[in-house]
Amino acid sequence: MKNVEFKKFNTYYDKYGKLSPIEGEDTIPFAIKRVYYIYEVEENVRRGFHSHKNLEQALICVHGSVKILLKTPEEEQIITLDNPSEGLYIGPDIWREMYDFQDSAVLLVLASEHYNIDDYIRGYDEYEKYYKEKFKKKEK
Amino acid sequence: MKNVEFKKFNTYYDKYGKLSPIEGEDTIPFAIKRVYYIYEVEENVRRGFHSHKNLEQALICVHGSVKILLKTPEEEQIITLDNPSEGLYIGPDIWREMYDFQDSAVLLVLASEHYNIDDYIRGYDEYEKYYKEKFKKKEK
Repeated sequence: MKNVEFKKFNTYYDKYGKLSPIEGEDTIPFAIKRVYYIYEVEENVRRGFHSHKNLEQALICVHGSVKILLKTPEEEQIITLDNPSEGLYIGPDIWREMYDFQDSAVLLVLASEHYNIDDYIRGYDEYEKYYKEKFKKKEK
Repeated sequence: MKNVEFKKFNTYYDKYGKLSPIEGEDTIPFAIKRVYYIYEVEENVRRGFHSHKNLEQALICVHGSVKILLKTPEEEQIITLDNPSEGLYIGPDIWREMYDFQDSAVLLVLASEHYNIDDYIRGYDEYEKYYKEKFKKKEK
């Protein structure tokens, strides 16, 4: 799917446990300006429901599991994140919903910019309109 | 303790769960070049046993709990991390050991540089020698 990439991270593993490193502008294509984590989410919760104009993100489920719905007006994909050594790169213009948080899931997100409310598109109708407008422009 | 700071992060909390953001050069004093997480550590494991010459880090236990021993030739402190909305800033020249990983602990670490083997000091004797040499120099 365009602007989405499933990634496997190197993981160091010995009798002392596991360690997975992610380096900005190397393991992932952007510099990490912001990190956040989502936790204590009830299993029946669905969240996200937005797209970003410019923000790039990497999503890693570092404990438990969570499902991610990714959608554009042309494509749709559901990915289960349940392994800390795997992650999901999501570029701009992708609608996302997160749901089915299992086993006290902790979803770690690395982001390419500090928080910027103007970068969000909320509401699927508005997203669809924005998307079609943006890519119509590019086709000209 | 010098070069160590316990931090409380803003946490957004509603019926959809909790979210704690950390922004580089804002919430923490350095730009985030590298992120790693330690997991699947047996409860009887003790790890760390090193210091850094220049690296700055923030440690957050995003699931479960873990104890952190911080030490210099002059000071010693033990901190329990068991809350994702709290973290520990550790600057250069601090000896650290991590132990008592409980409840499938996941320790998230944000670091100010990419991996650099030359920045590590391993072995407490070597650390003590380096430390005394470094701070003797500064006193002159």
